[in-house]
Amino acid sequence: MIDTTRALHTLLLVLDLFGTFVFALSGALVAVRRGLDLFGVLVLSFAASSAGGITRDLLIGATPPAAIEDWRYLGVSMLAGLLTFFRYADIERMRNPMQLSDAAGLALFAVAGAQKALAYDLPPGMAALLGMLTGIGGGMLRDVLVSDIPAVLRAELYAMAALAGAGVVVVGDMLHMPPTATTLTGAGLCFGLRFMAIRYGWRLPVARPPDADRHS
Amino acid sequence: MIDTTRALHTLLLVLDLFGTFVFALSGALVAVRRGLDLFGVLVLSFAASSAGGITRDLLIGATPPAAIEDWRYLGVSMLAGLLTFFRYADIERMRNPMQLSDAAGLALFAVAGAQKALAYDLPPGMAALLGMLTGIGGGMLRDVLVSDIPAVLRAELYAMAALAGAGVVVVGDMLHMPPTATTLTGAGLCFGLRFMAIRYGWRLPVARPPDADRHS
Amino acid sequence: MIDTTRALHTLLLVLDLFGTFVFALSGALVAVRRGLDLFGVLVLSFAASSAGGITRDLLIGATPPAAIEDWRYLGVSMLAGLLTFFRYADIERMRNPMQLSDAAGLALFAVAGAQKALAYDLPPGMAALLGMLTGIGGGMLRDVLVSDIPAVLRAELYAMAALAGAGVVVVGDMLHMPPTATTLTGAGLCFGLRFMAIRYGWRLPVARPPDADRHS
Repeated sequence: MIDTTRALHTLLLVLDLFGTFVFALSGALVAVRRGLDLFGVLVLSFAASSAGGITRDLLIGATPPAAIEDWRYLGVSMLAGLLTFFRYADIERMRNPMQLSDAAGLALFAVAGAQKALAYDLPPGMAALLGMLTGIGGGMLRDVLVSDIPAVLRAELYAMAALAGAGVVVVGDMLHMPPTATTLTGAGLCFGLRFMAIRYGWRLPVARPPDADRHS
Repeated sequence: MIDTTRALHTLLLVLDLFGTFVFALSGALVAVRRGLDLFGVLVLSFAASSAGGITRDLLIGATPPAAIEDWRYLGVSMLAGLLTFFRYADIERMRNPMQLSDAAGLALFAVAGAQKALAYDLPPGMAALLGMLTGIGGGMLRDVLVSDIPAVLRAELYAMAALAGAGVVVVGDMLHMPPTATTLTGAGLCFGLRFMAIRYGWRLPVARPPDADRHS
Repeated sequence: MIDTTRALHTLLLVLDLFGTFVFALSGALVAVRRGLDLFGVLVLSFAASSAGGITRDLLIGATPPAAIEDWRYLGVSMLAGLLTFFRYADIERMRNPMQLSDAAGLALFAVAGAQKALAYDLPPGMAALLGMLTGIGGGMLRDVLVSDIPAVLRAELYAMAALAGAGVVVVGDMLHMPPTATTLTGAGLCFGLRFMAIRYGWRLPVARPPDADRHS
């Protein structure tokens, strides 16, 4: 598929499962806060961790999607869901490490998603966007399922960090640079941007219509 | 595809259309209650009856999905939608038989969904989950479309009944048991569990965060 | 794929991009009204303009979908999003030309969607419905993403106009009529119906349950 060493491949799998775990935690936390039952918590765990990758795989025609074919993604998501269900207070208290882990998960998903899209011969711009989608899609479905407007559509710099990281991978591929280097650079850029956005409250501008009813 | 006699195949089609009909009724009832127009009622009928199977087919790469390629599913959904639109009060009054029919539809969809996933060589655990998804996916989209949190994420034992039924089919397949027997057993188990859940109010536990604002 | 002259093909692409642009405007306007940030505005622009076609392509197995493979759809959507973000008041003021453009976009998407479904050998009834879905799917996702019930499920004659236009294309195909003629007739019928619906407030009937709580 793509020219990476076997060691990098294994490392990427481990990182991918780590990203799956932290994203699943974010889904489970939302589910518990909304008073869903155990099944609802597990569904939101899986949705938050895997909907981005599944959507990417459907769009590029890679069926069945990796998160459906490989039980480890589901297993890791369930683990995160159960942990949150039975230890909500403990997980909730770790807000700061959670935010950093989430930024790391975003970085991993964005670069891995862009690589997979490139491997399926998507054009560069779309590969970058599919990398971003891999990072943000799970959180979007999580929010839609509890009837919220997806946080990523109005939160701090989140999707843009993912897009920047995925973009590095894509540009590196166009310039035939070694994938290991561009993957690390892309992930580092995404993580760094997201970290700064959390730390300094960076956000994208919001258009405020002069007089319109914003909630109609 | 799968080793069933032709008679069983025909029986399964009839049962599948029956399940489609009762699920479509559930979608139409929600649509009428929310004041949607005739088109909205028909859309929710089709979504509630077919979104689970369509999502399963997309995930396993079986395109076009059966509910898109075979007009009978659409036809039966439309029939249920029109009936509900013009005879809402009559349908609404049959709450008890409706609940039993819905449980039967859930059982049928769960075992049929698991069988189809097995026929497409999905791993056993995932086949069971796709069977469950076939049963609950339609109701989830129905609720998302009217901006509700899907009932299955916080209602009585519903998804778990579907998962149990689908699981029987999958385990039977692993043990090379005759599909007719495992299909009937799985459907019976799902229906029985769902019936008991309705009758005795069985539910999954809900995690209640100690102090968090549950609606933010 | 389908028997059209090359000139018609080019014309259809231009029209398709026009439809993409006006649908993207509708998504961007909703996003600005809801106070989404710049990224949210761009996401809703793309969702409103392309989700219908993407869903159609996933359902017929045409992956990657055209709107993912061809950067021009994304480019045109982004353009509409940026324009709305920076010139909201100007766009908002053009309500009347916008409604007409939207009707034109609907007509174009409906006939083009039906043609593509026919080219992928979908049965006629489903090809007509997929044409309709191409026209209304984007608006539905747009509304779901901001946690609204899709307007098309309870608004004036909108989906029915799309279905009528798509139906003309499908019936023409069954009768082996020249596609140019049926395309123009179908698009004209859809646009005309939609125009009349706006002008005279034509709507589908709404079933009002005698006593039920319509908002529970």
